[in-house]
Amino acid sequence: MLRALICGATGYTGIELVRILSSHPDVTVTRGSSLELPNHKMSQVLSFIGGENDFSLLTLEEVLDNPDADVAFLALPHGASALAARHLLEAGLKVIDLSADCRLQDPNVYAEWYGDHKAPELLARAVYGLPETKRESIRGADLVANPGCYPTTVILGVAPLLKVDSVDTSCPISDSKSGVSGAGRGGKLTTSFCEAGGGCKPYGVISHRHIPEMEQELSSLGGSPVKVRFTPHLIPASRGMVSTIYLPLRKETTAAQLQRVYEDRYASEPFVRVLPHGIFPDTAQVRGSNQCHISVEVDQRTGWVVVMVAIDNLVKGASGAAVQNMNLMLDIPETVGLSSLPVFP
Amino acid sequence: MLRALICGATGYTGIELVRILSSHPDVTVTRGSSLELPNHKMSQVLSFIGGENDFSLLTLEEVLDNPDADVAFLALPHGASALAARHLLEAGLKVIDLSADCRLQDPNVYAEWYGDHKAPELLARAVYGLPETKRESIRGADLVANPGCYPTTVILGVAPLLKVDSVDTSCPISDSKSGVSGAGRGGKLTTSFCEAGGGCKPYGVISHRHIPEMEQELSSLGGSPVKVRFTPHLIPASRGMVSTIYLPLRKETTAAQLQRVYEDRYASEPFVRVLPHGIFPDTAQVRGSNQCHISVEVDQRTGWVVVMVAIDNLVKGASGAAVQNMNLMLDIPETVGLSSLPVFP
Amino acid sequence: MLRALICGATGYTGIELVRILSSHPDVTVTRGSSLELPNHKMSQVLSFIGGENDFSLLTLEEVLDNPDADVAFLALPHGASALAARHLLEAGLKVIDLSADCRLQDPNVYAEWYGDHKAPELLARAVYGLPETKRESIRGADLVANPGCYPTTVILGVAPLLKVDSVDTSCPISDSKSGVSGAGRGGKLTTSFCEAGGGCKPYGVISHRHIPEMEQELSSLGGSPVKVRFTPHLIPASRGMVSTIYLPLRKETTAAQLQRVYEDRYASEPFVRVLPHGIFPDTAQVRGSNQCHISVEVDQRTGWVVVMVAIDNLVKGASGAAVQNMNLMLDIPETVGLSSLPVFP
Amino acid sequence: MLRALICGATGYTGIELVRILSSHPDVTVTRGSSLELPNHKMSQVLSFIGGENDFSLLTLEEVLDNPDADVAFLALPHGASALAARHLLEAGLKVIDLSADCRLQDPNVYAEWYGDHKAPELLARAVYGLPETKRESIRGADLVANPGCYPTTVILGVAPLLKVDSVDTSCPISDSKSGVSGAGRGGKLTTSFCEAGGGCKPYGVISHRHIPEMEQELSSLGGSPVKVRFTPHLIPASRGMVSTIYLPLRKETTAAQLQRVYEDRYASEPFVRVLPHGIFPDTAQVRGSNQCHISVEVDQRTGWVVVMVAIDNLVKGASGAAVQNMNLMLDIPETVGLSSLPVFP
Repeated sequence: MLRALICGATGYTGIELVRILSSHPDVTVTRGSSLELPNHKMSQVLSFIGGENDFSLLTLEEVLDNPDADVAFLALPHGASALAARHLLEAGLKVIDLSADCRLQDPNVYAEWYGDHKAPELLARAVYGLPETKRESIRGADLVANPGCYPTTVILGVAPLLKVDSVDTSCPISDSKSGVSGAGRGGKLTTSFCEAGGGCKPYGVISHRHIPEMEQELSSLGGSPVKVRFTPHLIPASRGMVSTIYLPLRKETTAAQLQRVYEDRYASEPFVRVLPHGIFPDTAQVRGSNQCHISVEVDQRTGWVVVMVAIDNLVKGASGAAVQNMNLMLDIPETVGLSSLPVFP
Repeated sequence: MLRALICGATGYTGIELVRILSSHPDVTVTRGSSLELPNHKMSQVLSFIGGENDFSLLTLEEVLDNPDADVAFLALPHGASALAARHLLEAGLKVIDLSADCRLQDPNVYAEWYGDHKAPELLARAVYGLPETKRESIRGADLVANPGCYPTTVILGVAPLLKVDSVDTSCPISDSKSGVSGAGRGGKLTTSFCEAGGGCKPYGVISHRHIPEMEQELSSLGGSPVKVRFTPHLIPASRGMVSTIYLPLRKETTAAQLQRVYEDRYASEPFVRVLPHGIFPDTAQVRGSNQCHISVEVDQRTGWVVVMVAIDNLVKGASGAAVQNMNLMLDIPETVGLSSLPVFP
Repeated sequence: MLRALICGATGYTGIELVRILSSHPDVTVTRGSSLELPNHKMSQVLSFIGGENDFSLLTLEEVLDNPDADVAFLALPHGASALAARHLLEAGLKVIDLSADCRLQDPNVYAEWYGDHKAPELLARAVYGLPETKRESIRGADLVANPGCYPTTVILGVAPLLKVDSVDTSCPISDSKSGVSGAGRGGKLTTSFCEAGGGCKPYGVISHRHIPEMEQELSSLGGSPVKVRFTPHLIPASRGMVSTIYLPLRKETTAAQLQRVYEDRYASEPFVRVLPHGIFPDTAQVRGSNQCHISVEVDQRTGWVVVMVAIDNLVKGASGAAVQNMNLMLDIPETVGLSSLPVFP
Repeated sequence: MLRALICGATGYTGIELVRILSSHPDVTVTRGSSLELPNHKMSQVLSFIGGENDFSLLTLEEVLDNPDADVAFLALPHGASALAARHLLEAGLKVIDLSADCRLQDPNVYAEWYGDHKAPELLARAVYGLPETKRESIRGADLVANPGCYPTTVILGVAPLLKVDSVDTSCPISDSKSGVSGAGRGGKLTTSFCEAGGGCKPYGVISHRHIPEMEQELSSLGGSPVKVRFTPHLIPASRGMVSTIYLPLRKETTAAQLQRVYEDRYASEPFVRVLPHGIFPDTAQVRGSNQCHISVEVDQRTGWVVVMVAIDNLVKGASGAAVQNMNLMLDIPETVGLSSLPVFP
């Protein structure tokens, strides 16, 4: 049994890692760190943890001093993550960083959106962990930058079109909607039940930090610069994310042609499901699972393509993807621990 | 006291009309029709109705045979509405039609999206009832076509830009999100709590019937053809609608310049509020009120404008707008009965 | 126009007072205090405030130093409220205290549940502001202790039975469910969307501070000691409270007999509605209104009575009741500003 | 690999069986019936089904004519289930009936609450499938009556007290709250998003059909008659059920004493978790899992015990319990396929 540690085990992505790994046959969580609750057992944080699933929470320093594990998941704030990653790599662990610290290859771009990087030497070493586009590089990596939730939807939604002549992919618009868990675990007025419940609101308009990540990966995959117009929205749901992506046609194309492009592109992907034409993705049908549902439609009247992509932001958008990356890095079959169906309704 | 009748009083827009009119000093609801519950009192349908607010529910036929009122609200399905409108106009009532039957001026366009029109002679007589664009015509009208909820957001959001040279308004994209009440009152699997709750999903992609209405009004207001790319989504909230609208810049413009355009355009509008730059609309802050909140932002990086518009789909998107139109038609000050603040949270 | 000030204007009961008073013809809010946002305008806190509804937020000290109003609403934390009440009474204002500070007549009972009282001389002066039981005393009062939300439901639910021989009212059980807004406005993990949403949980079991208030009022009304077994629960809704109250029968009684008791008791109450037998209260049908819905049922099989009471915790359970009390204190007809229908759905 | 069939595969308990069995190593679903969608694939009903999880939907008649399986789950309406059970037993299958048809041993009691029984000979043959009370009988059974969701909470909550002298268990009160999925999958106005969302309401007061089931099992377990006073409520959540149960003390007892009773009673139960004293169950912490969380508290002031029990109504309250029973009947370790953690948040 391989041993995993989770830095930041009591946030939502940390808790989700515990849930997923609890049914993984080859890996067990042996310890975690928590800023708020060090020196507790995980079962004291959540009533449903116990028995074999329980483990000790330490301070981050204690965990780093004595990692004693094979693989580490970093569910830490931006900035803190880079320093922990450097330390754990030196200690010989495989590292999967769920923060943004290792996602951007160019330290200047990082600085522009996040501030100075604490361990810039990591940027060249890290592999961007979207298996559907970088599977082989992830297999050999010891440091994987787990993608952001929004970028996961936008990259998976746009990637198949990058080589399609009839669609202009230079500047897609992504109008994205996310459940509240994406804002993290904590007490904030904006994510309180009464303020976030029953409403829908855009936020981070034109300025969300996930933009450079989408642009870096799509530009790299397509071989030419891509800019993304991106508006995130908060919806009154705990989990779930759907991105509705708009791209102009360059010349006439049918929905059936693009349907085939998507089906071909994702035919062998275990977690990406291209829905039949006319069926649209619903976050309720991916909740709790690592599935990603995609639909494509063409508006002949106006000459645009609409791509819709749904995931559970905490699974395929975070912790499920992290375990998928872990499997690849540790030479475990990719779907192990990740094939459970969504919890519906 | 003027007397109103409501055809279709037990649907959500009918119930909302009852609520709004219950605090209107000059108009009282004297009767209503209900397909499901004729020969009941309204208080038997809803526990909170009683005393002065109660009235009898009849069949539609009974109401039409003996309208005995000054003004009629038609909250009926498309098709049924046109015939009722014809009859009530002949009986001398002012009519506000909340269905789509009188919204499209061209019977061929109506036929394309809805099927053959039952009373096509009404189309030329009806005024499209968006007071912010047609106030003076509404005052003199005896038949007003109350706008659809989505068109209300898109028209109010785009109208100020139609005369701004630096923005290309020929083909805006509107990504819209609506609460479930927009689907009407009834037992459908897709709008059941378990299927609609906790999820977000696009529907009616490229084919929603509100598209021709948006295009007709924006083309007419701007004096040149406008096509709208429109994707509606269902969000897990009873009420509330937010449209995020994307338009390309033709030449450089600042957010401050567009902010001024919106503030000027809506300075004297009692129900439209242009939010300070950087504050974005939230459906939770319009719930239960006739307010419409608008923000505008410019993405200089990619050269696009983002306009965000929030309303309560049942109030400014339906029954509140209908009472606003009624006030204009009956020469009552426009805001009477409509100035209550949102119910927050 | 009478002038009202609101101490604690930016919490949920403060905001609700602003909403209700905005449509009150005789009273206007002229200023408020806010711990978090002094020296702002109310319109900077909430986008929907503006024009005639706007007012300045000051510190509590500034407001107390220069109250300049006819009536004050105290929506302050327990403890802070008593001192403010003392000060404002000295300045000649009528005071309605929405905190618990003036609800308990016995300072020892207060001390047991809340700690030492800061201004114990107020306890004898304050009138417990439940108009349905103390209407005449409220009329003459200058200090009213606005009831807690849970006590409102339990007292209104049990009071009619106190004089019914066949029911044992000495120790009712109230199993109560409240929307999240009852926990106040702020950023707490337990009331965050993700933790409170989609779940239901008991809290404050056997120890909730509203217990002595229920017992004091019911004992006083019935003329013999009443103990209450009380379990509050949090439900995933912003507003709404329903209490299901269980009492043993002493001798055989029919539901019809008790139905008549309730209908007689509340026949002339403007805000209490006894539902027809077999119809049960639903918080969705009181949301945003000052209505209280009550049902009574008898379980002949087991010899117990079940009373169900629903209110909107922020209206009849707090700010609506406060305005009702204000009307009585200021000799304004009791229902002014409070007759709007619920926002349904 | 053993083969399971699901009669009624497209309702919520049917879908939940598919989800749970999809990760069961020893059993696979080979076919299902559906009233609404026969002659479809399950993947046409739900987007997330596919590949190995897919199977054909037939009519009930087709399935019964050719069952071709080892075990059958009946997720059918009351009445239909009994006839299907008779047929499948004759065909040699093990049968787990999720309806109420086989739960009541006395056909007269069944008739009183449900109407005439269609296959009364089954009543003596069926074992009431609550493993925590009937494990050994279930092992040998070929027909198991899967418990109702409400009875599961009430029986697990009260059972440990039946042998405790100091508590009067003759007539517990259970105030229970259920998510909307308990009402089944379908389009009904009362369970529509707008009517059930954001509200809380009692229903089936004093008359719910789960009452005789609770009474039968508790009377049998305790050896003397038990009556249950039961009020179910609908809460605005898809899943989750919490019962708050009230019982009088006969003589003084401490919470610590009863805590020990519960911990001892459930020490070796894999799915029942007695929470530490002072921690109360939260439906959010059992969602999607087969766990049952229980707390016990004593109100010394009034001499009553409060027991709180939370489950996911679709898992431990239905389909998870059914798989637990299946494991016992097929001699598979009891927890196989059921140990995944809740989906939180």
